[in-house]
Amino acid sequence: MEINLIKKPVLLVDERICRENIAAMSSKAQKAGVMFRPHFKTHQSAHIGNWYREAGVDMMTVSSVTMCDYFMKNGWNDITIAFPANPREISDFNRIADKISLNILVTDYEQLVAFSERFYGEVGVFIKIDTGYKRSGIDWNHYADLVRICEYVNEIPSLRMQGLLTHAGNSYSVRGREKVLEVFDDAKSKLLHTKDIAPVSDLIISMGDTPTCSIATDFTGIGEMRPGNFVFYDLMQSEIGSCTLKDVAVAVACPVVSINRHRDELILYGGAVHLSKDSIVAENGEKIFGKVFMLTDEGWDIDSEIGYIRSLSQEHGIVKITSENGRKMRPGDIAAVIPVHSCLTADMLRSYLTLEGVIINDFSGK
Amino acid sequence: MEINLIKKPVLLVDERICRENIAAMSSKAQKAGVMFRPHFKTHQSAHIGNWYREAGVDMMTVSSVTMCDYFMKNGWNDITIAFPANPREISDFNRIADKISLNILVTDYEQLVAFSERFYGEVGVFIKIDTGYKRSGIDWNHYADLVRICEYVNEIPSLRMQGLLTHAGNSYSVRGREKVLEVFDDAKSKLLHTKDIAPVSDLIISMGDTPTCSIATDFTGIGEMRPGNFVFYDLMQSEIGSCTLKDVAVAVACPVVSINRHRDELILYGGAVHLSKDSIVAENGEKIFGKVFMLTDEGWDIDSEIGYIRSLSQEHGIVKITSENGRKMRPGDIAAVIPVHSCLTADMLRSYLTLEGVIINDFSGK
Repeated sequence: MEINLIKKPVLLVDERICRENIAAMSSKAQKAGVMFRPHFKTHQSAHIGNWYREAGVDMMTVSSVTMCDYFMKNGWNDITIAFPANPREISDFNRIADKISLNILVTDYEQLVAFSERFYGEVGVFIKIDTGYKRSGIDWNHYADLVRICEYVNEIPSLRMQGLLTHAGNSYSVRGREKVLEVFDDAKSKLLHTKDIAPVSDLIISMGDTPTCSIATDFTGIGEMRPGNFVFYDLMQSEIGSCTLKDVAVAVACPVVSINRHRDELILYGGAVHLSKDSIVAENGEKIFGKVFMLTDEGWDIDSEIGYIRSLSQEHGIVKITSENGRKMRPGDIAAVIPVHSCLTADMLRSYLTLEGVIINDFSGK
Repeated sequence: MEINLIKKPVLLVDERICRENIAAMSSKAQKAGVMFRPHFKTHQSAHIGNWYREAGVDMMTVSSVTMCDYFMKNGWNDITIAFPANPREISDFNRIADKISLNILVTDYEQLVAFSERFYGEVGVFIKIDTGYKRSGIDWNHYADLVRICEYVNEIPSLRMQGLLTHAGNSYSVRGREKVLEVFDDAKSKLLHTKDIAPVSDLIISMGDTPTCSIATDFTGIGEMRPGNFVFYDLMQSEIGSCTLKDVAVAVACPVVSINRHRDELILYGGAVHLSKDSIVAENGEKIFGKVFMLTDEGWDIDSEIGYIRSLSQEHGIVKITSENGRKMRPGDIAAVIPVHSCLTADMLRSYLTLEGVIINDFSGK
């Protein structure tokens, strides 16, 4: 990659790190005897999907019908749409279910009824179980809701019960391996309990979030894992303890456009529409929207920090300089930002540049 | 518009409100004798740009070279790029300056030197003055910096000093008309003082943010206004007091995909990749990511609130129901979300649907 060719914010991907992240998680799943169905909403790219394929992955997860269609066209034929099956898209579900092995997500009884009214395709059904994140799905201890859904599914021949699925997204609000493990153990025991009392046998337990899948080691009882973010990781994941900064496979190359010597700050061409507004909170209580490093043709260097982004507006990133590296930067130089949340950053930039200079611009979109 | 045709999140625009917002701001500028150079980064659409043209507007502001190129191709020929002129894009600036009347932004001496080294086009120069927002530009009372920049500009024949420009973005952190007026008066008096002591005569004073431009009435001494967000407004602006909810011209139509009767919540297909992660803080300290209303073929109804979005993940919007209207919603219904920050929402969805059913998908991109 020649950084001299970069004029505006570009999402860099380090293919080597990315493939290592895929290999590590895939091998972890294999050793644990757990099916590996990674979530592709993080990268949304057929090209990067092929890196999974080359690592032996043949099933995946998406979060929209649009993404499912996109990856189906790129040869994937075993897909779970891990988002409440949308009654507005029934004709698409019917069409897709005719072509591939499709799993859908049921989050409540009313949704199941509304969805199944005009659905005739053959699909596997995962019931979303809320183990504490309080986003979607039936509460793990609402037994009556579970039974009602299971019975309804059993009455409809085209719906085949597959399993119980959770996204233990509460792992994002804790810090450190021990706390993440507590979330994992708690979610797992709730799911296993739910499986035991469910009026259906042979349910697959599917778990998903990157922090628990990265940190946990005992997957006894788990049938499937669906992490997504781990392919890139990001600043948030390194804060949580899912990875270290050297495992992060993406950074946004941003031109330095202005210097404020009085405040010891740089202004980057790189704002909310490039990085997203997600932030982490530093020890002093200040928000951080990304960490900034030196960039060469060989990639970014996590040992050469320039500073951190203290504020973002639509196109501006305001960098607080934290080192002499930062003070050497001039307008026209390029810096690398490790983003807080790589899934959202990828969705905003919708293309990649590898360190070898390959442009990847096949992108599913929402 | 037939809401029955909507399957996934769509950005609705009420053309009537939008044109009224344009007419009101344009007429305000005209009466005050101030040039009206609206910022097009909010809508980024040539189609909506034509609504301005039909209201007599013939000059505009953008925040990137990409947007400038896009609107230039759509017949606009008097454009200010209100973002620190990026030394990496000099060849683009040269190309554009050959074709249209272009103004650039200078934010510090080092940037000016780096930029002008290889720049040969004829452009107007605005110096960015920081009147308290602490984002970019020279501090209003750093006289030495101002003089240094003015003298350098005067030495370069292709650079023509145009004026002093500020974005009083600190107006976004206050609430209520009086506080916004304080920000406006403070910024104006600092700019007029800077103009008085500047070693150049006939400088145009250019002010920009939507809150002050919406609320202020005394523009004595101001030469130009560049608000952008007012074309749509949003929840943030109604919180600040720049507008009321009935002035908001956009809402995101989102399918209801799930119901949680135990928590009195809905789940919308509409998340961070559709709405953006910007939030406002409610009186109880809770974050709000959008307000949700009933939607019919005629549009959204601000008198029929359903609830507010309490949490956003990549595709999910979790709605706390606040009324019986909300309790009547079923999976498969469509609700309308007034977004917190319409500029970011538009940048994520990149197309519009008018209430008359016209799809507007000409969009500049970043």
